[in-house]
Amino acid sequence: MRMYDMIMKKRNGLALSKEEIDFMITGYTKGDIPDYQMAAFLMAVYFKGMNEEETINLTMAMAHSGDVIDLSAIEGLKADKHSTGGVGDKTSLVLGPMVAACGVPVAKMSGRGLGHTGGTIDKLESFPGFSTALTNEEFIGNVNRIGMAIIGQTADLAPADKKLYALRDVTATVDNMSLIASSIMSKKLAAGSDVIVLDVKTGSGAFMKREDDAVALAREMVKIGTGAGRETVAIISDMDQPLGFAVGNALEVKEAIDTLNGEGSRELLELCLTLGSYMVFCTKHAESVERARDMLMKTIEDKSALRKLAEFVEAQGGDANAVYDTSLLPKASIVMEIKAEEDGFIEKIETDEIGMVSLILGGGRETKESEIDLSVGVVLHKKISDAVKVGETIATMYGNDLEKLQQAKERFMSALTFSKTPVTKNRFIKWIITANGTTKY
Amino acid sequence: MRMYDMIMKKRNGLALSKEEIDFMITGYTKGDIPDYQMAAFLMAVYFKGMNEEETINLTMAMAHSGDVIDLSAIEGLKADKHSTGGVGDKTSLVLGPMVAACGVPVAKMSGRGLGHTGGTIDKLESFPGFSTALTNEEFIGNVNRIGMAIIGQTADLAPADKKLYALRDVTATVDNMSLIASSIMSKKLAAGSDVIVLDVKTGSGAFMKREDDAVALAREMVKIGTGAGRETVAIISDMDQPLGFAVGNALEVKEAIDTLNGEGSRELLELCLTLGSYMVFCTKHAESVERARDMLMKTIEDKSALRKLAEFVEAQGGDANAVYDTSLLPKASIVMEIKAEEDGFIEKIETDEIGMVSLILGGGRETKESEIDLSVGVVLHKKISDAVKVGETIATMYGNDLEKLQQAKERFMSALTFSKTPVTKNRFIKWIITANGTTKY
Repeated sequence: MRMYDMIMKKRNGLALSKEEIDFMITGYTKGDIPDYQMAAFLMAVYFKGMNEEETINLTMAMAHSGDVIDLSAIEGLKADKHSTGGVGDKTSLVLGPMVAACGVPVAKMSGRGLGHTGGTIDKLESFPGFSTALTNEEFIGNVNRIGMAIIGQTADLAPADKKLYALRDVTATVDNMSLIASSIMSKKLAAGSDVIVLDVKTGSGAFMKREDDAVALAREMVKIGTGAGRETVAIISDMDQPLGFAVGNALEVKEAIDTLNGEGSRELLELCLTLGSYMVFCTKHAESVERARDMLMKTIEDKSALRKLAEFVEAQGGDANAVYDTSLLPKASIVMEIKAEEDGFIEKIETDEIGMVSLILGGGRETKESEIDLSVGVVLHKKISDAVKVGETIATMYGNDLEKLQQAKERFMSALTFSKTPVTKNRFIKWIITANGTTKY
Repeated sequence: MRMYDMIMKKRNGLALSKEEIDFMITGYTKGDIPDYQMAAFLMAVYFKGMNEEETINLTMAMAHSGDVIDLSAIEGLKADKHSTGGVGDKTSLVLGPMVAACGVPVAKMSGRGLGHTGGTIDKLESFPGFSTALTNEEFIGNVNRIGMAIIGQTADLAPADKKLYALRDVTATVDNMSLIASSIMSKKLAAGSDVIVLDVKTGSGAFMKREDDAVALAREMVKIGTGAGRETVAIISDMDQPLGFAVGNALEVKEAIDTLNGEGSRELLELCLTLGSYMVFCTKHAESVERARDMLMKTIEDKSALRKLAEFVEAQGGDANAVYDTSLLPKASIVMEIKAEEDGFIEKIETDEIGMVSLILGGGRETKESEIDLSVGVVLHKKISDAVKVGETIATMYGNDLEKLQQAKERFMSALTFSKTPVTKNRFIKWIITANGTTKY
């Protein structure tokens, strides 16, 4: 087999066989196939696409290019959730304890944030002492004992994807559904869960700005997961504004705790109930999705999810008192109110820009090496369709540097568009996609 | 400027500016732009093409990426001929002396053969003692004194093209008209002539198998040459069978000499008259193309072209006696007649395969390092549409190794297709393309 022939085949619009894709991914991972041949191939894929079978084969080849996690030491079916990323996305902090409280083992491998979206590990480090540097034994042991553990990405998961993604990033070949879907799914498959629930965002703060792209990506990922023998469900939700109200590490942890106390954002809770109900149902902890939802709602009402969070934080060395007293979380030294300058309704929020506001304040990483300030960020008081009056506080900004705050404030204000006339809200949960079909909400 | 943005632009079907193309070619030649980005760009060009302006800018950028030959020390307008390559193509050996005899300075830089097509320098080395290792002074001096000189490719012409071509060759991005045309023309522009006459072949022995591809390539090259301020003409001729009768170095030299004696292949002469008439006319040595043709015909009749060949061979150290006595050329030790095995008409010749026959006999290079045997090859006695009878000689094969001859004979026979019914001949000269228009013949 020669890589040349595969480039030619794809260029001419033909499909590659499983053997060819395996040869290509193995050769590329080992360095036998040079970057320039892979770059030409990727550009041919950009123009000619890959069919369902090729996409599944590519995903499987990448999933098996490095370590594949064995979760068999954990009893029962394991569920994993993956988010395509968004601004103010503290879902894992709420969802994890909720489903764990329902008996679903949560064995999660998480990453740190880069750019304008935050990472779950960074957020969790807001609990003084918290660490994700567990051994494999501690990780598995914690899941079996208390139902939930989160570990940093130590294993060499899907190295072929890592190498391919870096190449796509510099050759303008990122934007292809098959390549995006296989990149995400290869890591999820290697991570070893039986059930995969995908939290796909769409809108101005999401990777998929357009709803039809989000639907196409979700469908592709569900096909791949199903084809690989994992029960896979995708929920598409709105990211035309930040999820919930808080953006910034400790601020998001506080909002997550409020939500577990039944006092947080209605949309955040709705998303956790929707994602969670499939995690609970598909792992056979409930006989229906509706029943699963009821079980999850109960973990809020009886505070069992909140207690689960405390148990989990403590098991990983964190100060669990902060779960019950959020004043123990990192706090910024300067608090600045942002007031409306005109009467009207919030019409649009450039959500990526709100992520940038938190980054400017020091809450995100510009490069992998950046140190982040967990205490800073912004909390919205008004969101899309809300009426505002001149002088009314629309957001509170938390920072430790006046100059940065000033810069962040300007950035924040220019991210908002106001309307003189009332504005309709987007539907929040937009689509649910399972192996059996697609439902629009 | 960033190469990434140029890949993206081309991928999205947008045109690149002159500045962008210059940046890209300079950066790639210096090694600042990596192969993988160029490979992605080339594949995007394969799908999205380049417009006329981009193609001209690319050609100019490559032409200026290395040495640019200065022929100003030679008086008058200089003409160069370029062939897209074919089997039995001894055109330069006949055309050079003819146009030189008409007063057109022939200052040619030539290459050696690779694969199934031969190189002019190899053929000329059939004259004992002949050398193309001239100094620049000798080269210019010879052209000024006797009107003709051929030098080996010593200068670093269009290194960007060399590097790009090598990359295209391994990334399945050769087949794009703009890239093919700019590759050829960048070297021709760097070679310094004022007039460029392109000998474009089409058919089973040519790079362009399909006639419409040959027309498209010719048009593209004429546009580029014209755009670069050089008078450029392309003649498209048939290569569905070898040009003339002989294939093999010394055998082709003999046929060239026969043609200069007025005794060679009618088609070879026709091609030289057509190409030559534009070289003579465009360099202002005749007031019309028709008049130029008459002048060229006269160089055959009065043997002035034959004498020019002898002068030229002698000036470059070769034995000019061989021009008048072709028995002095290298001779193979074994001569094998190939007889027809059935009655019929020759319908088709896999012309590339006839090139392979010569290669098998030792007359071509499989790799750049191969030594070649100048004496071997094949001479056809019958060509397409000719009637043959069982036992009649259809070709004579010249070799120095019986085993190779046997192998070559089988290859030769399987390259021919016979018909029971009469066959029509292809038109030989198919198209003439100038800056003013395209004429089909």
